Amino acid sequence: MLHTETTPPSPVKLSAVAGPGQPEPTPALEQLYRGFEQEMLVPLWTEIGGLMPAHPKSQALPHLWRWDHLLKLADEAGRIVPVGRGGERRAIALANPALGGRPFATPTLWAAIQYLMPGEDAPEHRHSQHAFRFVVEGEGVWTVVNGDSVRMSRGDFLPQGGWNWHAHHNAADKPMAWIDGLDIPFAYYTESQFFEHGRLHLDAHERIQPRFSRSERLWAHPGLRPVAHPEPTAATPLLAYRWVDTDRALSEQLALEAEGYAATVSPGHAAVRYTNPTNGRDVLPTIRCEMHRIQSGAATQPRREVGSAVFQVFDGQGQVTVGDKQWQVRRGDMFVVPSWQPFTARCDADQPQLDLFRFADTPIFEAVNAYRTETP
Amino acid sequence: MLHTETTPPSPVKLSAVAGPGQPEPTPALEQLYRGFEQEMLVPLWTEIGGLMPAHPKSQALPHLWRWDHLLKLADEAGRIVPVGRGGERRAIALANPALGGRPFATPTLWAAIQYLMPGEDAPEHRHSQHAFRFVVEGEGVWTVVNGDSVRMSRGDFLPQGGWNWHAHHNAADKPMAWIDGLDIPFAYYTESQFFEHGRLHLDAHERIQPRFSRSERLWAHPGLRPVAHPEPTAATPLLAYRWVDTDRALSEQLALEAEGYAATVSPGHAAVRYTNPTNGRDVLPTIRCEMHRIQSGAATQPRREVGSAVFQVFDGQGQVTVGDKQWQVRRGDMFVVPSWQPFTARCDADQPQLDLFRFADTPIFEAVNAYRTETP
Amino acid sequence: MLHTETTPPSPVKLSAVAGPGQPEPTPALEQLYRGFEQEMLVPLWTEIGGLMPAHPKSQALPHLWRWDHLLKLADEAGRIVPVGRGGERRAIALANPALGGRPFATPTLWAAIQYLMPGEDAPEHRHSQHAFRFVVEGEGVWTVVNGDSVRMSRGDFLPQGGWNWHAHHNAADKPMAWIDGLDIPFAYYTESQFFEHGRLHLDAHERIQPRFSRSERLWAHPGLRPVAHPEPTAATPLLAYRWVDTDRALSEQLALEAEGYAATVSPGHAAVRYTNPTNGRDVLPTIRCEMHRIQSGAATQPRREVGSAVFQVFDGQGQVTVGDKQWQVRRGDMFVVPSWQPFTARCDADQPQLDLFRFADTPIFEAVNAYRTETP
Amino acid sequence: MLHTETTPPSPVKLSAVAGPGQPEPTPALEQLYRGFEQEMLVPLWTEIGGLMPAHPKSQALPHLWRWDHLLKLADEAGRIVPVGRGGERRAIALANPALGGRPFATPTLWAAIQYLMPGEDAPEHRHSQHAFRFVVEGEGVWTVVNGDSVRMSRGDFLPQGGWNWHAHHNAADKPMAWIDGLDIPFAYYTESQFFEHGRLHLDAHERIQPRFSRSERLWAHPGLRPVAHPEPTAATPLLAYRWVDTDRALSEQLALEAEGYAATVSPGHAAVRYTNPTNGRDVLPTIRCEMHRIQSGAATQPRREVGSAVFQVFDGQGQVTVGDKQWQVRRGDMFVVPSWQPFTARCDADQPQLDLFRFADTPIFEAVNAYRTETP
Repeated sequence: MLHTETTPPSPVKLSAVAGPGQPEPTPALEQLYRGFEQEMLVPLWTEIGGLMPAHPKSQALPHLWRWDHLLKLADEAGRIVPVGRGGERRAIALANPALGGRPFATPTLWAAIQYLMPGEDAPEHRHSQHAFRFVVEGEGVWTVVNGDSVRMSRGDFLPQGGWNWHAHHNAADKPMAWIDGLDIPFAYYTESQFFEHGRLHLDAHERIQPRFSRSERLWAHPGLRPVAHPEPTAATPLLAYRWVDTDRALSEQLALEAEGYAATVSPGHAAVRYTNPTNGRDVLPTIRCEMHRIQSGAATQPRREVGSAVFQVFDGQGQVTVGDKQWQVRRGDMFVVPSWQPFTARCDADQPQLDLFRFADTPIFEAVNAYRTETP
Repeated sequence: MLHTETTPPSPVKLSAVAGPGQPEPTPALEQLYRGFEQEMLVPLWTEIGGLMPAHPKSQALPHLWRWDHLLKLADEAGRIVPVGRGGERRAIALANPALGGRPFATPTLWAAIQYLMPGEDAPEHRHSQHAFRFVVEGEGVWTVVNGDSVRMSRGDFLPQGGWNWHAHHNAADKPMAWIDGLDIPFAYYTESQFFEHGRLHLDAHERIQPRFSRSERLWAHPGLRPVAHPEPTAATPLLAYRWVDTDRALSEQLALEAEGYAATVSPGHAAVRYTNPTNGRDVLPTIRCEMHRIQSGAATQPRREVGSAVFQVFDGQGQVTVGDKQWQVRRGDMFVVPSWQPFTARCDADQPQLDLFRFADTPIFEAVNAYRTETP
Repeated sequence: MLHTETTPPSPVKLSAVAGPGQPEPTPALEQLYRGFEQEMLVPLWTEIGGLMPAHPKSQALPHLWRWDHLLKLADEAGRIVPVGRGGERRAIALANPALGGRPFATPTLWAAIQYLMPGEDAPEHRHSQHAFRFVVEGEGVWTVVNGDSVRMSRGDFLPQGGWNWHAHHNAADKPMAWIDGLDIPFAYYTESQFFEHGRLHLDAHERIQPRFSRSERLWAHPGLRPVAHPEPTAATPLLAYRWVDTDRALSEQLALEAEGYAATVSPGHAAVRYTNPTNGRDVLPTIRCEMHRIQSGAATQPRREVGSAVFQVFDGQGQVTVGDKQWQVRRGDMFVVPSWQPFTARCDADQPQLDLFRFADTPIFEAVNAYRTETP
Repeated sequence: MLHTETTPPSPVKLSAVAGPGQPEPTPALEQLYRGFEQEMLVPLWTEIGGLMPAHPKSQALPHLWRWDHLLKLADEAGRIVPVGRGGERRAIALANPALGGRPFATPTLWAAIQYLMPGEDAPEHRHSQHAFRFVVEGEGVWTVVNGDSVRMSRGDFLPQGGWNWHAHHNAADKPMAWIDGLDIPFAYYTESQFFEHGRLHLDAHERIQPRFSRSERLWAHPGLRPVAHPEPTAATPLLAYRWVDTDRALSEQLALEAEGYAATVSPGHAAVRYTNPTNGRDVLPTIRCEMHRIQSGAATQPRREVGSAVFQVFDGQGQVTVGDKQWQVRRGDMFVVPSWQPFTARCDADQPQLDLFRFADTPIFEAVNAYRTETP
């Protein structure tokens, strides 16, 4: 088990540094620093460069995980790692190389591949962390949220606000993989998480496989809301955003652009944001989720912003640039864009389009008035 | 200089653990874990206990810093550490014993004693981090915010939203100490900080020592706002909250309680929150600041909440309990209440009152719908 | 032309009244009242009963307009009244019998039947009043809003926030009727209206007849919004809410109820509210619009609320009760529910369902904290 | 008693009018109009000029009421009109000459002089209409709001949100006059009012005459709010805004302007808005209240806005221009500025200042996105 860095307290270790505004390294200074260490104190003047840089200098690194590698390891785990109470989920998380070996894709975001064998159940639990599932390929698993069975198929996005009971069951005769996104690192650093176990297995009547969940039947009607539910909710009540809708929305943006109307983010770059129909805001209070489509040969405008993002290639092939890294990507590949690192994606000319699923911690920064963005 | 833990990437280190839901420690598992390590992956099932506890289990520890120790070290620093460009401030931060020697009082909050010698200037700069100053004793320093000179005297609270230019100058013939609070750790973990240097020295006409800043003359009138400034702002435009007002507000709450009216938090426990007059909300988007008064012999109700807080004793003596720690405290002492740790304070029977200045990261959790509180 | 009640000023006319708290009708009182009249003053004590009743006592009366009468008169108007600049629209408004002959269905709402002959244009204009169209039957007219052509077919709801250019053209070989709803009386009483003429005729390229407007192609995707349009807008950007969606949403609510889940307003009574996808709130800042479906033999729960509403029967037959009035209604019939008058609707047992389109001034009262509702 | 214009329904009366877009006055048209009348219908084409003008053309007229006339009549009423249950208040309302003799200063606002004789009680009641009192001169009356006694003295502003119990008692040996402002006309036209009688007389312990109300002791501390009351409220919890604070705020704005800083609305024109400390917004959900100070010889910038306002001269003398009216005004004079009528005020050169209390219906228009303003 990682990071059990708790007791005894790590003593402060101070030494004089050279530079503008720094005190002379004299014996008196040494004595002062020993005093600081004893009293658990650290001066600003030696730390200010790391703590207060001119702009975000992310510790997190741009990094790419290949889908075929992820899938192969998940498949092996499927054979030798059980799913059940205690471990809870057969989920394997991306660990940013610069975050101390912790299972954190970025300082705020968790991203994992989850894998369920035919007939398996992932036990019911709930947690305060906000979560979603996104399906890059496959089908056959149903997620049951507060007793509502939600189908998972390629291209579907399933958000789930904190503190809702949920379990999964694989009703098919094949394994299925998908990705999970959560705000686990944010809750971890800010020490704000709650968790509760539910039932080990679902009831028989919950193992149904309806085409549409009850949440969709109530909420997935454009611009219409049930009069019986008039109040806004912090997270979306809609538990599935289907690919057919997302695909059509992206296609229409590009078609409108072709007809001469403003609809896309920039030429050849369409994008939709998944939103909470009760308030039009982000689908989860801490996570912004979007699907981007880049037309053949087109590219997104370079852009950097406060906060981090994780992408998964949903379809097509292309080239992405994150800071000083550049990768050729294809279906399922996942990569991280750290805070304030410039990002661009380009669709290969021989591909019809490049579809990128994206999630980011932007709502946190917008909520505390700390969001900035820039086109370099 | 601390925490230069960046490159090369810390490799993931995994080993099988025993417990419910854990896989058998077989050679196949070992091989799987080596594969995870190579691909920068970490499974949930070994980590879930640390990442998803039943409730916040703070790494941060309750800890107490004695004011006389802080002051003595600050005074020594005053003699041997210069204030100027590069170091920027003679500020000495509280380092929570369980946060790796970093200058973080809690996972989100910075708390420091700052010290300025007679005639000294702290150079102008601005940063996206939100900040405040609180004066437990002394006077003679003026903070100049965007050219507006703000007096600092005992009991005064000086908030300052992110990205405002500010400098300090000590106009007196004695040193002065005060405390600074900022959201530096929050900005550090979430990688969202900006910083810019300003002028090294103030202009002569800014070295005036007005009794009231222009911000007070515009904004410190109860329930009245300038018609020329009709829009809400993210942080308060009022740069000083004077002790005379705070003291009267607390006294009136206790007097109203004595007359039989609901005004206090609980019997013998009065409290005011510093607020932004443009929207009635917290004075800073990320930091809640309050002054609490506990009557002779009275105590606060035990309470725990999501998020962390730092206290400074402003006046009186008493006993505080934080989790399993208990301290007898007096003027200037500072202590930390980590997330979800129960807190109580009691005023000694031979003291007229115990006044506690408190700041906390609550607005962050309220903004993302993650705040909870409980009376154990 | 009506209500030219402006100059000269109507003199105040006062006379003593009998009742509790009233002064004796003495010569001194008469002299006082003559003084009031001369100075344009009116005492509270004679007026309080009318001005400050225990609860809203609407001047407006419950009233029913039969669709066949409306249609017949509109058709006659189609033959003899031109459509063009100056008159602007061939719209015929419901005049509540108790509102002085003004074209006001209620004190705040305008409701009219509009009629356009084959090939006719209604000229372009814009106004600050918020508006919508609802189509109870027919097709063939396109409304062009800021150059975007919007088809009008049975069951479609077309909202349009204030100050957007709009025109209509009938592209079919038959006349078409529909209803208009606006907040004209509210703007009239509060004296807050603006109006501007646009072009007399549309450009040729605007006379297209697309199945879906550009607004729908951008916005009519459940829970998805264009990333290029991230800000909330006061009125909905979606210009058509199609019957196929509304019908399905209502059917699903009743199906969910039949399966045992909470989805309807009350047993057998489904309802959806048309909302602005950018904020989840009412489609227009001053007008709430909804479609209600009452199952065969079922009835709505009696209810009264602050503010007035207008209904049109979209389909089916049933009995409605408004205050002390009761009517048997069928397709197209329109009726008014004044403020605080109890309302119930019942679907006839031999009808599959009763569908009622409803619009109300509720957002005004919610915005100023004056909304109340009650189940008698 | 006025306006009992309810039953029987006023029949619609239509006749052909000449003008652009109007139908020929033929027998067929006459027959059509008779059909409209019979069916309670009114065409848009004859009404559009009055209903949809290019900009607000207020029916309400600019009008001035002299304070000495008001006071003289109020004093006479004090001798012959009782105060008690039924009549409720000895309040005499300004009746705009163009609003049909109704006691409406503007289409949305009620303004009255209220008068209480020594020792008199005005009985307790509550109503949904929002209200305030403003004291141009005199003292000795206490308003008791939900049992909290609030002193009334020259320059004090006492707001009171809807549905709070309140009574008055004159504890002095002289009569006292003040003005009341309410949203009675708005509630009347929109039919949204509730009213309830309370006790005829106050309890003895409520007849105290404290210098400061409990509400002030809790809430009148700049930027400080009781931690025990963390939620925003629709109307202000602060029941008195004292002249000493208002005067100082205005003086400081002019002093800051003289020192070269932006603080005033325009040169020589200072203004404060009374606000709700729980949210920084208007003190009442429907009424904006402000105090304006114009320096000797200075004038406000001409301005017009959607919605109506009522002014009372608090101090000084000057000239005000409202639309095409111009008056020389002095202490206590009251006047009306109808919607979209340009307004300017100028302080006489031989006066130190002109202080104008102002209230307006702006919050209603801001709430429904209908507010506009313009500098002609």
